Amino acid sequence: MPMPSLIQLGVGQLPVDRSFSVAITGMGGARLERGVVRFVAELSRQTGMFLQQKPVGSANPTLRIHAVHGSEKAQELSEDESYELVISQSGAKLTAANPLGILHGLQTFLQLVEITANGFAVPVVTIKDQPRFAWRGLLIDVGRHFIPLDVLKRNLDGMAAVKMNVLHWHLYDNEGFRVESKRFPKLQEAGSDGLYYTQDEIRDFVAYAHDRGIRVVPEFEMPGHSRSLFAGYPELASGPGPYTIEPGGADAVMDPTREETYKFIDKFIAEMAKLFPDDYFHIGGDEVNGHQWDSNPKIQAFIHAHGMKNNQDLQAYFNERLQKILSKHHKIMMGWDEVLHPDLPKTVVVQSWRGQQSLATAAQQGYSGLLSFGYYLDLMWPASRHYAVDPMSGAAAALNPEEKSRILGGEACMWSEWVTPENIDSRIWPRNAAIAERLWSPPEVQDPDSMYERLGELSWRLEWLGLTHRSALIPALHRMVGTDDIGALRTLAETVEPVKDYTRMSSLKTTWDFRAPLNRLVDVARPESDQAQHFKNSVQAYIESSYTDRAAEGEIRMLLTIWRDNDRRLHPLLEQSFLLHELAPLSEDLSTLGTDGLLALDYLDKSAPSPESWRSQTLAFVEPAKTPKADMLLMVVVPVQQLIEASAGEVVNSNRK
Amino acid sequence: MPMPSLIQLGVGQLPVDRSFSVAITGMGGARLERGVVRFVAELSRQTGMFLQQKPVGSANPTLRIHAVHGSEKAQELSEDESYELVISQSGAKLTAANPLGILHGLQTFLQLVEITANGFAVPVVTIKDQPRFAWRGLLIDVGRHFIPLDVLKRNLDGMAAVKMNVLHWHLYDNEGFRVESKRFPKLQEAGSDGLYYTQDEIRDFVAYAHDRGIRVVPEFEMPGHSRSLFAGYPELASGPGPYTIEPGGADAVMDPTREETYKFIDKFIAEMAKLFPDDYFHIGGDEVNGHQWDSNPKIQAFIHAHGMKNNQDLQAYFNERLQKILSKHHKIMMGWDEVLHPDLPKTVVVQSWRGQQSLATAAQQGYSGLLSFGYYLDLMWPASRHYAVDPMSGAAAALNPEEKSRILGGEACMWSEWVTPENIDSRIWPRNAAIAERLWSPPEVQDPDSMYERLGELSWRLEWLGLTHRSALIPALHRMVGTDDIGALRTLAETVEPVKDYTRMSSLKTTWDFRAPLNRLVDVARPESDQAQHFKNSVQAYIESSYTDRAAEGEIRMLLTIWRDNDRRLHPLLEQSFLLHELAPLSEDLSTLGTDGLLALDYLDKSAPSPESWRSQTLAFVEPAKTPKADMLLMVVVPVQQLIEASAGEVVNSNRK
Repeated sequence: MPMPSLIQLGVGQLPVDRSFSVAITGMGGARLERGVVRFVAELSRQTGMFLQQKPVGSANPTLRIHAVHGSEKAQELSEDESYELVISQSGAKLTAANPLGILHGLQTFLQLVEITANGFAVPVVTIKDQPRFAWRGLLIDVGRHFIPLDVLKRNLDGMAAVKMNVLHWHLYDNEGFRVESKRFPKLQEAGSDGLYYTQDEIRDFVAYAHDRGIRVVPEFEMPGHSRSLFAGYPELASGPGPYTIEPGGADAVMDPTREETYKFIDKFIAEMAKLFPDDYFHIGGDEVNGHQWDSNPKIQAFIHAHGMKNNQDLQAYFNERLQKILSKHHKIMMGWDEVLHPDLPKTVVVQSWRGQQSLATAAQQGYSGLLSFGYYLDLMWPASRHYAVDPMSGAAAALNPEEKSRILGGEACMWSEWVTPENIDSRIWPRNAAIAERLWSPPEVQDPDSMYERLGELSWRLEWLGLTHRSALIPALHRMVGTDDIGALRTLAETVEPVKDYTRMSSLKTTWDFRAPLNRLVDVARPESDQAQHFKNSVQAYIESSYTDRAAEGEIRMLLTIWRDNDRRLHPLLEQSFLLHELAPLSEDLSTLGTDGLLALDYLDKSAPSPESWRSQTLAFVEPAKTPKADMLLMVVVPVQQLIEASAGEVVNSNRK
Repeated sequence: MPMPSLIQLGVGQLPVDRSFSVAITGMGGARLERGVVRFVAELSRQTGMFLQQKPVGSANPTLRIHAVHGSEKAQELSEDESYELVISQSGAKLTAANPLGILHGLQTFLQLVEITANGFAVPVVTIKDQPRFAWRGLLIDVGRHFIPLDVLKRNLDGMAAVKMNVLHWHLYDNEGFRVESKRFPKLQEAGSDGLYYTQDEIRDFVAYAHDRGIRVVPEFEMPGHSRSLFAGYPELASGPGPYTIEPGGADAVMDPTREETYKFIDKFIAEMAKLFPDDYFHIGGDEVNGHQWDSNPKIQAFIHAHGMKNNQDLQAYFNERLQKILSKHHKIMMGWDEVLHPDLPKTVVVQSWRGQQSLATAAQQGYSGLLSFGYYLDLMWPASRHYAVDPMSGAAAALNPEEKSRILGGEACMWSEWVTPENIDSRIWPRNAAIAERLWSPPEVQDPDSMYERLGELSWRLEWLGLTHRSALIPALHRMVGTDDIGALRTLAETVEPVKDYTRMSSLKTTWDFRAPLNRLVDVARPESDQAQHFKNSVQAYIESSYTDRAAEGEIRMLLTIWRDNDRRLHPLLEQSFLLHELAPLSEDLSTLGTDGLLALDYLDKSAPSPESWRSQTLAFVEPAKTPKADMLLMVVVPVQQLIEASAGEVVNSNRK
């Protein structure tokens, strides 16, 4: 995963044993060699064998690598990423135009390694592969909650595993400025709680990403979303201030009417342009709220004096000035879809977040663009829903080929209102891999069942990279229970998901506070419950078999029994821990569903229709069980409802026809 | 854990909420401040709250810290490590003579934090604490299998959590030399497979340890166990060579008759003495096998010419020379108990590994000493067995006070024949904490039940430090099964333990090969099965209750049922994976035990004596089930045997009296 564009499966296998070796022919280079050392280290971890890490000059390597060209200093958007991997029973050969293609091919090789009755092996296969889109990104917001570099690095490893090639680094927001500026040190000093990246760290991080075939595109939000910037430099703002990063601070926007603003930006970008070697530079530009501009008479006067109609025109003026500064520093400007304005040059890249229409409109007007609408990981959607979103679908489907060629790809977005170093992996993975496949694989690859099967496989393999999307749940449950016995809480945790979309934010009773602890069950509950999915599939199989599938029935009965008995085990714990109090209604609901589901199963098992009165009574309970509690949804309600409804008997007969 | 020497529990609690703050009064210093920042970061992780990491100057901190003196540049053995922690409902105060005591007290504070119905809190308490022994060490062998620094660092964090204060770093052995020498670069170049620590890395690591109150004592094995050293410098050896680090290489010992040997050692120690600031320097000295000396006529001639009786005298001569070199470089020499010889000065520290007698003998002769016999973690003993070993017991019990004062403490030893970066945490933790308690707490603290209760609690808390002693099992099981469904294998894995003592090594059919993969179940099975312990306790409780304890019976029945059914689930997987083939007999045994145990339980439940013929038949199966299979022991055999025996009925009656 992502599925290659062409696979020809052969017969037999190539063993991967302790004699495994790699040789590099063609262009080498330090980046490629480091990639090979990393590859062998990962293969060692995957197999538990001590393998020779350095490439050999051997005449008979297990894997021969051949890159036609060497690495460019900075990776470019247009780089050829294709590779060809040919595995026979006697050896494997990986060929690519560039080291980048080799890196992708090595990831494919790692995914092909399987355990067999005789040892580890890869199948005999020929793979020819290249990406559908050149821009396959993940945005990580480190402004709202700081994410340390070791956590980001393991996510880069995960991105490389699914062949994503851009980290879009959202480096500040109202709550914190995360980059050291030597020119304007008050940016990080007043604009953060001490949690920011030094320039040395950033250089190291960018090199780490480059080694893994990942470009780092920085985002510096202008003119809005930048209160943390005004904490040190209030003179840049459109309102009088003072500004702090404390929770609940007022909205604030840069003053685009003062020349000092552009002088500051020029110097700041000069510094950042050196730190981030990528050609592209993201200036944000979204959600510019007009309040401060409206209430500043000087700004309104400026608008009228320059013949502008409104705040939008003022932002376009600002963006034009910004674009010239970026151009001077050899950067291509990117912005969120609000920046779209006829005054902007066509070199600007537009990132669509409010809908697919803006991407199509931009392409029609001659702008290059990226899709992020539909790829917001923070909305807690199931992977299949992201997977169904295609940059070329919707309004884009009607574009002509030239316009279509302007759609560069897309980016998954990990906004961090509810994200911490502890839970971020579980918010990104494994769902991000479904988006990665959408952006890499041919458009015909779209069967969600196949995707989920491969996603489940990939998910545990991603753990080899140090990602904690599965394992981080355990220490969090221990924290909540306060003892070693987390069994009952885990049972509940595996049946729930966080509420979707912006429900959690909109149900807040007070202003969102970025310093509030994120230690509730909702903060570690997985966005997509494997167990609920599994239960749903079992119920589906049982119903479709007209209640004859005994394996499915056994599975259903086992889970319902565990759930029925779980509240009795969990209840005593709920009272002892303040973090568990809120779970009482969910726990009771789960047990009731277990009881009702078992009764329904008994009726179905005996082919005896359930009494109407019992059904209406239990179904009346089901609806309230669907409502969010403690900001979570119980994901097993609908399949239980199906069992209860099926127990009426009529449905049984109609299904049997 | 370790249990403090004095605890006075009060009434009430001090809340630990998001306003938590720390103030430092008295002597500060960068080491103490970093310790406080780390403490708050750990508290943040433990509670999931975003806490202010920097110490405040506030008039009303939650925790006030007062150290009388500042830090010494290098930590000394004799340093006062005591602290006093007073927690009231309004605040806490931690006082110590030195920053080292403060560091210990902060660890105690972290362990006191618990979750309550109203929030996180620490109890009102007064603790006065100091260690029983000044030397509380852990040896880690990185020679046989290289262990990366990040893995070692998280183990330092674990050591700090249980107040251990010495890392004994066994830096080379026959299989690899792990330190960069600038003076003698062939040491690491010819003597390792490229896996060694650079001098910069070592300096950083020693500083990391110092920050956590841990001294780093290097061990350089001389004259034996040093084949990797001869790979680059064969002229130092007693035999002609050539020498490599390849598996199966011959035993080799330094030539103590040549002056060049001492010149080399002098220069080498001069370099290493600067790298490792600790006063102590370990020269190994164990297991000097006489073969090479016996077969070298020049060496034998030297022995006779100098009036020595045998090889032991020659080693004593070598040690004397070595001791003078170390003394010149201001180091105190340490060695394993073989170095004990009347010709050595009394400053030498003796580490007993062959028995407790040598420690007592050394103390009687005026040498300081450490106990490691009984603390070998690689022997896979239960924690309780290590816990029962006391440096002052055995032969040492008869020493007079002055002699006793020469016993400095002890060291747990993690020899790495079967250890990898993946499984090392599970070999060290949590059992090492029992040894840490033995060395810190008063000698009266020795109840194994209390120890196990606290050890279970500590074990999950250690996960906050990044230790993987629990979590690393999961990816390893995925590797072996090759799919997402590891349930059945996990059930088996949780009932077994690796064989004990040196059984695994002695049952090898070929020479031990340090490059052989360590990816079998025995390599990740936990040294002490929590589940077997839990099952045993339940059976114990059930029998002691005269079969009336329904909770225990339910627990027993549930586990036996899972085991009975497990082989049916696991068997199909065993055939598909070469790493699982060997588990078939174990899996069958477990299921048979489940079946037999359930039958016994039914007889007991009905108070109907089981038939003699059935009993003798099933008990005949039990004995072979106790023998090692696939280098593992099934740990649930004995409790099932007890159930079967109890089902005879007579025992029931005698128990009921």
